[in-house]
Amino acid sequence: MSDASQTDKPWAGRFTAPTDAFVEVFTASVGFDKRLYKHDIAGSIAHARMLAHVGVLSEAERDTIVDGLRAIEQDIERGEFAWSTSLEDVHMNIEARLTDRIGDIGKKLHTGRSRNDQVATDIRLYLRDEMQVMQAEVTRLIEGLLGLAEEEAGTIMPGFTHLQTAQPVTFGHHMLAWVEMLLRDLARLRDAYQRVNVLPLGAAALAGTTYPIDRLFTARELGFAGVAENSLDAVSDRDFAIELVSDASVLMMHLSRFSEELILWSSAQFDFVDLGDSFCTGSSIMPQKKNPDVPELVRGKTGRIYGHLMSLLTLMKAQPLAYNKDNQEDKEPLFDTIDNVKGCLKLYADMMPQIQVKRDNMYEAARRGFSTATDLADYLVRKGVAFRDAHEIVGKAVRYGVDNDKDLSEMSLDELQQFSNVIEPDVFEVLTLEGSVAARNHIGGTAPEQVRAAIIRVRTRLEQLTL
Amino acid sequence: MSDASQTDKPWAGRFTAPTDAFVEVFTASVGFDKRLYKHDIAGSIAHARMLAHVGVLSEAERDTIVDGLRAIEQDIERGEFAWSTSLEDVHMNIEARLTDRIGDIGKKLHTGRSRNDQVATDIRLYLRDEMQVMQAEVTRLIEGLLGLAEEEAGTIMPGFTHLQTAQPVTFGHHMLAWVEMLLRDLARLRDAYQRVNVLPLGAAALAGTTYPIDRLFTARELGFAGVAENSLDAVSDRDFAIELVSDASVLMMHLSRFSEELILWSSAQFDFVDLGDSFCTGSSIMPQKKNPDVPELVRGKTGRIYGHLMSLLTLMKAQPLAYNKDNQEDKEPLFDTIDNVKGCLKLYADMMPQIQVKRDNMYEAARRGFSTATDLADYLVRKGVAFRDAHEIVGKAVRYGVDNDKDLSEMSLDELQQFSNVIEPDVFEVLTLEGSVAARNHIGGTAPEQVRAAIIRVRTRLEQLTL
Amino acid sequence: MSDASQTDKPWAGRFTAPTDAFVEVFTASVGFDKRLYKHDIAGSIAHARMLAHVGVLSEAERDTIVDGLRAIEQDIERGEFAWSTSLEDVHMNIEARLTDRIGDIGKKLHTGRSRNDQVATDIRLYLRDEMQVMQAEVTRLIEGLLGLAEEEAGTIMPGFTHLQTAQPVTFGHHMLAWVEMLLRDLARLRDAYQRVNVLPLGAAALAGTTYPIDRLFTARELGFAGVAENSLDAVSDRDFAIELVSDASVLMMHLSRFSEELILWSSAQFDFVDLGDSFCTGSSIMPQKKNPDVPELVRGKTGRIYGHLMSLLTLMKAQPLAYNKDNQEDKEPLFDTIDNVKGCLKLYADMMPQIQVKRDNMYEAARRGFSTATDLADYLVRKGVAFRDAHEIVGKAVRYGVDNDKDLSEMSLDELQQFSNVIEPDVFEVLTLEGSVAARNHIGGTAPEQVRAAIIRVRTRLEQLTL
Amino acid sequence: MSDASQTDKPWAGRFTAPTDAFVEVFTASVGFDKRLYKHDIAGSIAHARMLAHVGVLSEAERDTIVDGLRAIEQDIERGEFAWSTSLEDVHMNIEARLTDRIGDIGKKLHTGRSRNDQVATDIRLYLRDEMQVMQAEVTRLIEGLLGLAEEEAGTIMPGFTHLQTAQPVTFGHHMLAWVEMLLRDLARLRDAYQRVNVLPLGAAALAGTTYPIDRLFTARELGFAGVAENSLDAVSDRDFAIELVSDASVLMMHLSRFSEELILWSSAQFDFVDLGDSFCTGSSIMPQKKNPDVPELVRGKTGRIYGHLMSLLTLMKAQPLAYNKDNQEDKEPLFDTIDNVKGCLKLYADMMPQIQVKRDNMYEAARRGFSTATDLADYLVRKGVAFRDAHEIVGKAVRYGVDNDKDLSEMSLDELQQFSNVIEPDVFEVLTLEGSVAARNHIGGTAPEQVRAAIIRVRTRLEQLTL
Repeated sequence: MSDASQTDKPWAGRFTAPTDAFVEVFTASVGFDKRLYKHDIAGSIAHARMLAHVGVLSEAERDTIVDGLRAIEQDIERGEFAWSTSLEDVHMNIEARLTDRIGDIGKKLHTGRSRNDQVATDIRLYLRDEMQVMQAEVTRLIEGLLGLAEEEAGTIMPGFTHLQTAQPVTFGHHMLAWVEMLLRDLARLRDAYQRVNVLPLGAAALAGTTYPIDRLFTARELGFAGVAENSLDAVSDRDFAIELVSDASVLMMHLSRFSEELILWSSAQFDFVDLGDSFCTGSSIMPQKKNPDVPELVRGKTGRIYGHLMSLLTLMKAQPLAYNKDNQEDKEPLFDTIDNVKGCLKLYADMMPQIQVKRDNMYEAARRGFSTATDLADYLVRKGVAFRDAHEIVGKAVRYGVDNDKDLSEMSLDELQQFSNVIEPDVFEVLTLEGSVAARNHIGGTAPEQVRAAIIRVRTRLEQLTL
Repeated sequence: MSDASQTDKPWAGRFTAPTDAFVEVFTASVGFDKRLYKHDIAGSIAHARMLAHVGVLSEAERDTIVDGLRAIEQDIERGEFAWSTSLEDVHMNIEARLTDRIGDIGKKLHTGRSRNDQVATDIRLYLRDEMQVMQAEVTRLIEGLLGLAEEEAGTIMPGFTHLQTAQPVTFGHHMLAWVEMLLRDLARLRDAYQRVNVLPLGAAALAGTTYPIDRLFTARELGFAGVAENSLDAVSDRDFAIELVSDASVLMMHLSRFSEELILWSSAQFDFVDLGDSFCTGSSIMPQKKNPDVPELVRGKTGRIYGHLMSLLTLMKAQPLAYNKDNQEDKEPLFDTIDNVKGCLKLYADMMPQIQVKRDNMYEAARRGFSTATDLADYLVRKGVAFRDAHEIVGKAVRYGVDNDKDLSEMSLDELQQFSNVIEPDVFEVLTLEGSVAARNHIGGTAPEQVRAAIIRVRTRLEQLTL
Repeated sequence: MSDASQTDKPWAGRFTAPTDAFVEVFTASVGFDKRLYKHDIAGSIAHARMLAHVGVLSEAERDTIVDGLRAIEQDIERGEFAWSTSLEDVHMNIEARLTDRIGDIGKKLHTGRSRNDQVATDIRLYLRDEMQVMQAEVTRLIEGLLGLAEEEAGTIMPGFTHLQTAQPVTFGHHMLAWVEMLLRDLARLRDAYQRVNVLPLGAAALAGTTYPIDRLFTARELGFAGVAENSLDAVSDRDFAIELVSDASVLMMHLSRFSEELILWSSAQFDFVDLGDSFCTGSSIMPQKKNPDVPELVRGKTGRIYGHLMSLLTLMKAQPLAYNKDNQEDKEPLFDTIDNVKGCLKLYADMMPQIQVKRDNMYEAARRGFSTATDLADYLVRKGVAFRDAHEIVGKAVRYGVDNDKDLSEMSLDELQQFSNVIEPDVFEVLTLEGSVAARNHIGGTAPEQVRAAIIRVRTRLEQLTL
Repeated sequence: MSDASQTDKPWAGRFTAPTDAFVEVFTASVGFDKRLYKHDIAGSIAHARMLAHVGVLSEAERDTIVDGLRAIEQDIERGEFAWSTSLEDVHMNIEARLTDRIGDIGKKLHTGRSRNDQVATDIRLYLRDEMQVMQAEVTRLIEGLLGLAEEEAGTIMPGFTHLQTAQPVTFGHHMLAWVEMLLRDLARLRDAYQRVNVLPLGAAALAGTTYPIDRLFTARELGFAGVAENSLDAVSDRDFAIELVSDASVLMMHLSRFSEELILWSSAQFDFVDLGDSFCTGSSIMPQKKNPDVPELVRGKTGRIYGHLMSLLTLMKAQPLAYNKDNQEDKEPLFDTIDNVKGCLKLYADMMPQIQVKRDNMYEAARRGFSTATDLADYLVRKGVAFRDAHEIVGKAVRYGVDNDKDLSEMSLDELQQFSNVIEPDVFEVLTLEGSVAARNHIGGTAPEQVRAAIIRVRTRLEQLTL
């Protein structure tokens, strides 16, 4: 990391020519890292207190610095802070202003630290906050899905594999499939948080410092669970950013899957749900359109987050220790990931209560697709037919149904018996959609009873996943 | 694509509930697509002219519209245009303002087009301009490299494979390796330009329009080489964006390779070049540092562009025809790619003339690494030794040199002859660095003579690569 | 690149310990690069002829070498060649066998070249062949699509945006959208071919050679359009591989879009096409299923090719010149890309003639979705209503239709006139599907007449795209 | 998932045309999924026991099936099993052979399951084994690094930022930076393992089964910590594969960083280490070369794993529930990731003990780079100079040193005092390399004392990270 304005760069002593003007603009990070101001100030306050604790600052100096930093924070929040590109980044902007305000004491704040460990600390503080927001939004989305699942625990729809009607399932069960994905996302967030919640400060530029610092004191002040154990690693580690963006990629992949289904279900061809006018838009040219913009945009944003993951992985490939300027490129993909994931989660959590389920359409679709063929096969097996033979018998019955435009449940006993003589009147119990779903009554099965039991378990599991 | 503000969205007729407020903000694109204003206006002017040409507009209507659009362009450039998020995008912002200005005639502008073909046209117009800037900057960088190559055509440095000293090469030859990469980049830009330079306007929403439009007229007005041949494809095609970002990825890969070498060469261990104080920065904590920030940042930005490529490829994966809202996500990665690639090219083109070559250090490094071992082997072959045997003889001589801390050229004839009795006094001609490079005198070889000839050929090839 | 077996590695002279056994296995490439044998031999034969041409080999030596290489090629093709991992790669395997066969003359073949330029030559020769196969398969797929387009030039289906019914289009027009994508793929292949078709041989290890080689002679022998102009670049350039895999990624993206649509269209909900039993499979548990396996697998393979692109871009990031061992990793992603893209193209080209179009279902779907709403708006505009006002009128009519379950064409004149009094009996001409598509009669429009004209133009354009 | 051979596909009943021959070959997975045979058989045995436990199979049937499966396992391990492409995958190959062996009882094994939940179970069983191997190899590599760190706890080298000499550090400290990265990798593996170690069996095709299965019984048999809670999710979830490949990507990124440093340190310019002849190779053309092939190849393989990650993320993007054929593409990237990561770890773990550290060269490099400039600044601060002023004073002293070719420790007291009159004879204590590293004596600092303490802590932390 390098410093500050043309005239007063602190490292000017060794240089004979000033920084090229375009270099100054193009390499400045303050345009995007100023969002870290709150965490930069929090980190500086904790550092000042630690320096006083070990005697490097007097108590009076500490108080002057802390007061100055708090005043700057208020200025920024009131919009009364003039950010300077020539001061390069959030750290130098705040430090320069501090010295303006409180004089030479301000210069002592940087004792025993470097911008290398300072920025690593800022990002971790920032991420802790943002990860908690992400967790809250995922939880809110899960609550919305549980609400839908409860309401539609017994609603029957076609279950698909290969986008072909396979077996009837309940809509509540389908919503719980989405919930499972999100629960794993929460678990990954929680695990990643452990690796974020570690203090790098004290690593200084790369090797630690000669001042008698107390890193555990600073960690306690800032609520970190521990300190980074190696200074070279501490200033160059960006694993936590990659891990978070990787977890975000999987989360977005899940949202893209939900989106794909909502888009399909909103089409005239499926017509299973209505997303609510507030979450759709019309067309400037085609007045009849009601476009599922929100799921489409969310699906589209998946690639954006994948891209950021690739960006960060490429960034860190083959970088020698310790800090290199390349690392400045870690922030924009990370920030954009967080902003977009939070936005997508908010949209989805807000949208869930608006979704109208078209039960009749789904029921009718399930009824038409020979979706109880497996149930007939299972029935035959229970009557003593070998599984693979039963499969073949049912295959022939389905072909007969296709040719005669009849679902299995619409065939007469005579018609069914032409395929196997073990078929008896009780067959019609298993050929109904209700009988089919109710029969899948084990942990993880689609029976309404299982859906209700699963919802209760999810609420318990959720509690164990808070950060 | 969807429309406009809460109260007056043109598609409001079919809807009963207003758009959710956060949806409106989160799905608006005007924050980033307003940069297309100039091209949006140019496209609209051409469209208005075409509508008049085919009689859909009167000449007076056309003139009123064209004047109104030009006035808006001036407003925007003077910073006197209030962009509205509720008007969603650059197109609706400009169209709404046009109607404010010139009344209901303004509403006729949208006849026979849709935002789907309009935005596709805007981006292509924009890309044509930006690709020309990129081409100019690549060319300027090539010129800088040719300058260095001319000056250092005979400067000897170690050539590396596996980062081990392999054979002596000339610095000019090394610069020309970089030039070759950039020439390929120019060729790819030129090829991609052919696929950008095609007019989608007239595809309307997806199927064409019932108005008697003349697409070739519009294409001529805007300087397009042709028109998109299929309306469904025209509104959903984003190949050109992917192709450009792919070409940009390879270009950045090249710059990352230059960067890696400049960083190595700036280290105390290599010490082959000085990048100039204007392109380096110092350290806030270590006063002796002179950091090669520019190459490091450029190397870091490579991942950013790769990420954008992945983002766009993922975006388009498995999208059914025709336009989907997902496609709104095409712009930010594309714009950021262009901004950053142009910035990196500018930095590099500006930096080239500042590079100081440390000839003595490079010569000394070449001298120390047994870099003429291959020349000795070739010498032996010319004296009748089989190639694989010659290799083994030289291997033993090198091992002797390692043990006795002597380069091959520093050994006496006696010492050399212990490895092969075909060695005679003329061996010393081939063991010098100058002899070694001069002997590689064929097209593509490192001889100073070849470097100078290659520079001349590059200038000719460059002329064939202008857009 | 490094050499050969424990006991007789040609570089053993400088080493005191043998290669670690696992290193030898893990770093060997012969397992995957042996597929280059034919091109390695072709390159060696041309090299031998060149060496004879410039007098480094005698004519007799050349003939002995060429005969030996041809015999080896026959052995390999008969499956009578024992590949050895300890000989590391295809080059050393063939060279070692050559020396076994013809004695010490075989050792002279490697004069004036290195494995660095040899492997670069082999890959380019290989790619030329494979790109021609790819081009032929794309062309065959285009032919299949043109066949469908001709047959279904007037078949009406709903055109979608946002997967909502937008406007009627013709099935033939939709097929031509796919054709446009493939034509761009052909153009990119042709452009990439220019950059593949350049000879690196003569670059030797990195700096050229001291032998009096004639590179243009070799290029002519092998049918290359030119020679690589810089030796350092020639041995380290992998742009051509990246460019090809990038082009393949876009091609697979196109196939993934076709696949998505075919999967949707094969669902019970759309039911627009039947893919043919030969290209579907059934289920081991659900006898009624007919799964569109081929489009699904092709869609799935898209990610595989994107991954290879990312792999190659990452591989080359920040590699210093010239050759590094990393580059050995270029082959597997490249080979796997080619194999899979060829396979997917073959599947699709084979499948096209089997596709059964369900015209009635598509027509009915188009009829139900208010797909002629835009036509009504255009009608109103032609009657003097401003475009934005017309849009609102139609919006209200559509809402009435939704509430009363009537398509626009099913409403009476009275019903229509309640929304605008400019509506007259001639409105019904524009409200039919046939009228709607026929009216979009300009280049790129969906009218059957335009579809037939476009097919003719495609055949001409195809001719200009052969390699 | 689809079934088996031309003539006897179990789903043939519904089909009229046989599968296309190329489709059969191109869609078969047995070529790569046969490596799962051991886990497929283990899963089948547990499933058979569960079926007997709930009364679906008799005890005799169970025993016949279990014996049959064990015999097949032995056949496979003895190489006496003929894999058939027309039987498509590992599951059908084994099941068909089972029925050959034990007759119709074999057909009962598939009761209550589907290939969809079967393959998901197989992969999880396989991954558990492989993740344990990966963990063991990472641990072995950490042990190697700890060995080096212990031996070189006090060895002084230059610490770099921006590849510029920054401050002296100890080689042991540098090795521990690498260890920290690997410890995080272990923690991520452990976390991912929790999400792998869950049983999907019982989900059947997508909805569960009508048989009275006991999933907890099966989970206990196979040692799973729990069961997948939703059947739709269970058959379509591939998060665990993505998470593992993501963790592997970060791990490879770490190895690429180690590799970059080892390659730099092996160059003639740095010359800090010797990797051992067994892990290097020579050149076929340049006898003096000793190439660091192993680190180069490992660095190159980084891209390969990144590519697989992108491949899997793309694969799952926007897939509707539940199982789709696309998912067959999950295996090859996953298997290749595991094979290559294990190989790279083995190479590195094997190589560590061979590394020779060139202490004198590193010491000399540290001595030359003004690496104690920060120490001088800290000294000035302790004497009462403000930090930013001290920085400027030292900057001037460094510039004097550059101009006069003197390190700070080589200047006389007079020379030093011209920059600040607070400098006294005790300054020389802080200007030595030994003094500099010893002074950074806090947790995470580079002092030899801290290195030794950190090694002890690592051994404890390692114990907590076993799977």
